[in-house]
Amino acid sequence: MSSGPPQVRRHLAQLPGYAPVVPLAERARLAGLDPEDCLKLDANENPYGMHPTVRAALSVAMADPRFGSIYPDPNQTELRAALSRYTGLDASRIVAGAGADELLDLALRSLLQGGDVIVTCPPSFGMYRFLADINELRLIEVARGDGFTLDSETLQTAVEPFGAECIVVLTSPNNPSGDLVPRDLLRDILGRGATVILDEAYIEFAGLDASAQDLLDDSPRLIIMRTFSKWAGIAGLRLGYALAHPDLVADLIKVKQPYNVNQAAEVAGIAAVDHADEIGGQIGAIRASRDQLYERLLDFEGLSPLPSDSNYILVGVDPGIGTGKELHDRLAAIGVFTRTYGDPLLTSYLRISIPRADQFDTLTERLGSVL
Amino acid sequence: MSSGPPQVRRHLAQLPGYAPVVPLAERARLAGLDPEDCLKLDANENPYGMHPTVRAALSVAMADPRFGSIYPDPNQTELRAALSRYTGLDASRIVAGAGADELLDLALRSLLQGGDVIVTCPPSFGMYRFLADINELRLIEVARGDGFTLDSETLQTAVEPFGAECIVVLTSPNNPSGDLVPRDLLRDILGRGATVILDEAYIEFAGLDASAQDLLDDSPRLIIMRTFSKWAGIAGLRLGYALAHPDLVADLIKVKQPYNVNQAAEVAGIAAVDHADEIGGQIGAIRASRDQLYERLLDFEGLSPLPSDSNYILVGVDPGIGTGKELHDRLAAIGVFTRTYGDPLLTSYLRISIPRADQFDTLTERLGSVL
Repeated sequence: MSSGPPQVRRHLAQLPGYAPVVPLAERARLAGLDPEDCLKLDANENPYGMHPTVRAALSVAMADPRFGSIYPDPNQTELRAALSRYTGLDASRIVAGAGADELLDLALRSLLQGGDVIVTCPPSFGMYRFLADINELRLIEVARGDGFTLDSETLQTAVEPFGAECIVVLTSPNNPSGDLVPRDLLRDILGRGATVILDEAYIEFAGLDASAQDLLDDSPRLIIMRTFSKWAGIAGLRLGYALAHPDLVADLIKVKQPYNVNQAAEVAGIAAVDHADEIGGQIGAIRASRDQLYERLLDFEGLSPLPSDSNYILVGVDPGIGTGKELHDRLAAIGVFTRTYGDPLLTSYLRISIPRADQFDTLTERLGSVL
Repeated sequence: MSSGPPQVRRHLAQLPGYAPVVPLAERARLAGLDPEDCLKLDANENPYGMHPTVRAALSVAMADPRFGSIYPDPNQTELRAALSRYTGLDASRIVAGAGADELLDLALRSLLQGGDVIVTCPPSFGMYRFLADINELRLIEVARGDGFTLDSETLQTAVEPFGAECIVVLTSPNNPSGDLVPRDLLRDILGRGATVILDEAYIEFAGLDASAQDLLDDSPRLIIMRTFSKWAGIAGLRLGYALAHPDLVADLIKVKQPYNVNQAAEVAGIAAVDHADEIGGQIGAIRASRDQLYERLLDFEGLSPLPSDSNYILVGVDPGIGTGKELHDRLAAIGVFTRTYGDPLLTSYLRISIPRADQFDTLTERLGSVL
């Protein structure tokens, strides 16, 4: 036995860790600015914040003297019933978690063991690599084509050798490139028996009819991840859910932490579903601003926005302007906080989350001032 | 590749799963009673609920239009500063999680690999076995002596062969037996180089001076788990923390889910620390009721309460009355919800969480009516 502190497992000790979003207050402080004068466009949150109807539901819930003091329902009965209304799927196909992050981890650790393979198509959500590292998985990265498009043949060829000891993670719309996974590609890879986690964190900004959930019936190896962090504006409360085959859902419910969804998230999530139409007004405004911003960005010389089905736009930055990181830093200095990446694929890119309509002109003016 | 749903790993497929607490509404419905007429004494929650000062802090936070919509601070800077004030320890020794449950899992999966050993001393908290199962660990159960007392020699002998590939989990006060881990035993086993997770979920009911946190400086292999679910009355919001060597804390922060503590828990946790004195009034009342209940239980023929340093009492039930389960069921039928166990060690026991002072007579009267 040893006299030093216990050591984490070797593969964890070497981890770079996840690069999380720096809080607004911290970013504003670094820029020497008042947070109120800053635009937080770095984490794809809903810029309109939690909807008033959801806030009202939380206030009502808090008036109950038992609120918060009792353990949450481990079976998530009411929450899953609400998610069933929202998705139109039976509750037996739904399990909720503390953000889709928790459910991604849960699915990976439940289905794969150390050394198994996870296939991703970078550039994509940084959490996949993080979770591959945590779970000691072999990460196979399949290159995208021009404009970051997915290529079915390349993906098939990469997946083929690994059979069932492999999970393919696709993101629709993809973060950060904003494009939907083509239906044919998804059907194709599912048809060949691959297990696919389809991350639909941003699907509401494309429209729910762009979801692949209708494939669940015929595709028992499809697992869809969703979140309330984006469309419903409750990233801070942590709520996500997975849609999958009922047998797998039953297993995941058994393996998850029993009290994984906190009561505030539960209340807010149910309220968000019940007021989805009203929140839809926010989503509509975000989509309109997105399309408007795309057009506006095309007007800036040296900026090449990618078309987006989501609530952010990935912007190619001409070397004449600088790297994506350099433009990011210039914007940060004047209180526009965007997202830049260490990933070599994204050196000349910048991701901008869609702001509120009333922030739109400030964004484009400040952007213009640093080009 | 296969056409059925993906299968969870073999050791998970066979899991019995965690036996969580059945929600109050469900238990009341089963008993055909109004929840308001029932006593929920099955989950060791704070019967006074979230303190009004904490509730007020949540209301104030919710008035901020950004509340809930922005991702939580992954470094938990303000929360850890508050926990530092509460514990008197440097923030570098503290990591917060979504309940101690998450941190127990995080520590086990970070420090041990499949096949490694976890040593527990049953009867104790059911979560340990659940997490051992999830993480494919070998569970070594060390028997306690009469009255469920821990025996240092027996424990040492059991731990000795496993060296660093082993974590000893001790619980102080123990759930369900209510007794503190003797200081000598803890010092002894730490002195021999064992890694110990000391679960102090209920330590506030014994008094913080009964904590072993003063051993942290000289014991780099000691990890202490704490929760806000019990003393602070926010079980539903999910907040716990671990105290450990700064090197290990740094690693756990890197390995944890970045946004593991939701914003409601963060706000409530900071408020609870700031109002710990006032919440101390609730704790004092619970301790007074506990000691009073212990005395009262001694008066019932056939009931043998164990002395408790916690907010529950484990009660031995004479076979003349029935098994613990039978007494539990009789109580449940009249709206007193206690905790019974499948564990053979606890067949003749029942655990009763301490009620509010105004519920005390109802509890003892209903108990008297079924004996």
